[in-house]
Amino acid sequence: MTKPDHLSVLDALHSTPARRRLSTEPIPDDVIWAVLDAAVRGPSGGNAQQWAWVVVRDRAIKDRIASWYLEGWNAAYGSRREEFLSAAPSELPMSPQAFLGAEHLAVHLAEAPVWIVPALLGAADSRDPLTGSSIYGAVQQLFLAAHAYGVGTNLTTLYRAHEADVRDLLRLPEDALTMCLIPMGYPDGGSWSQPRRKPVEAVTHWDEYGARRPRS
Amino acid sequence: MTKPDHLSVLDALHSTPARRRLSTEPIPDDVIWAVLDAAVRGPSGGNAQQWAWVVVRDRAIKDRIASWYLEGWNAAYGSRREEFLSAAPSELPMSPQAFLGAEHLAVHLAEAPVWIVPALLGAADSRDPLTGSSIYGAVQQLFLAAHAYGVGTNLTTLYRAHEADVRDLLRLPEDALTMCLIPMGYPDGGSWSQPRRKPVEAVTHWDEYGARRPRS
Repeated sequence: MTKPDHLSVLDALHSTPARRRLSTEPIPDDVIWAVLDAAVRGPSGGNAQQWAWVVVRDRAIKDRIASWYLEGWNAAYGSRREEFLSAAPSELPMSPQAFLGAEHLAVHLAEAPVWIVPALLGAADSRDPLTGSSIYGAVQQLFLAAHAYGVGTNLTTLYRAHEADVRDLLRLPEDALTMCLIPMGYPDGGSWSQPRRKPVEAVTHWDEYGARRPRS
Repeated sequence: MTKPDHLSVLDALHSTPARRRLSTEPIPDDVIWAVLDAAVRGPSGGNAQQWAWVVVRDRAIKDRIASWYLEGWNAAYGSRREEFLSAAPSELPMSPQAFLGAEHLAVHLAEAPVWIVPALLGAADSRDPLTGSSIYGAVQQLFLAAHAYGVGTNLTTLYRAHEADVRDLLRLPEDALTMCLIPMGYPDGGSWSQPRRKPVEAVTHWDEYGARRPRS
């Protein structure tokens, strides 16, 4: 197995952006197992672990889902290409550079060597916005572990207008809900840079909303 | 600031269980800032970051919410105490030891020196089970950063029958939804051990649900 670079947890937390430009180089099975074994250490309400982690490498399956994904991309973002590319910095949350990365992903999704589709069993009919508390922490663990092995990831849900089709294609149980799609691959462009975010002082409130403090 | 122990990301991913026995020792402001600054590097759909992170230290606020929490605990778990404590190992996802830890937390919640309540703006009316994809990854980053500083955390939602009351008490906007409550404190009992989970081979599927493989 490719040995992970020694990376401290604090450095990892500050240098794991979405990687959307991924090479086609295969990912060894033992890296996939190691990454999933770190993922499942994440939290699950009541430790119920009603989750399934589907590793997708079959090209026919990927092509099918990628076509649905491209539909979703075009509906949500592709049709607004000029708007995103001509926006002044910080006018939109997605920079022109991020837009181009996401567009690249939408076109090349099926070429990512491995996808992970985490699903929650019994969640198909959920209307609870807190449902994800039982899986997205584990997904974040997956992202960080992948980074330790030099593998890039990102979290997408743009396939979801075809949720039932994806569920059928992956032969998931009727009561399962896919929670996202995670393309994985060794990065081909971009860097392990700190994700650009609003300053922490701007989103932190002390005892009540609106009560700010300068960072000490 | 207490300097974080050098902890590799892979070690952290395998040794950050919910810590429910927390001391009352105060947490320095700069540790709180550092932990939140790591949290906000987590993912947010379209990088929108419609989040607010409320740091709660006011004892009156904590006492109020803790009483609602205890109601929720009793309704969901406390009333089933004997069942949990007499269950054979692996019969229920929550072991007797985990039950006692959660019970301890329910009784001592207000004594945890710091709580973080992450909220999503514009999510109050959400019925979308994928809503949490824009915050729980950041929450997991918070847990891991806290561990680097020796601070324990856990994720709870048992206050949520009183969501509107909590929102009012924290003066959150009407359209905000609290996504969980995170008690934080230096651990007082327990250890940074690997969370007990189903074996990764039992929850991993290859190209289609039900297609298993032994771990290589």
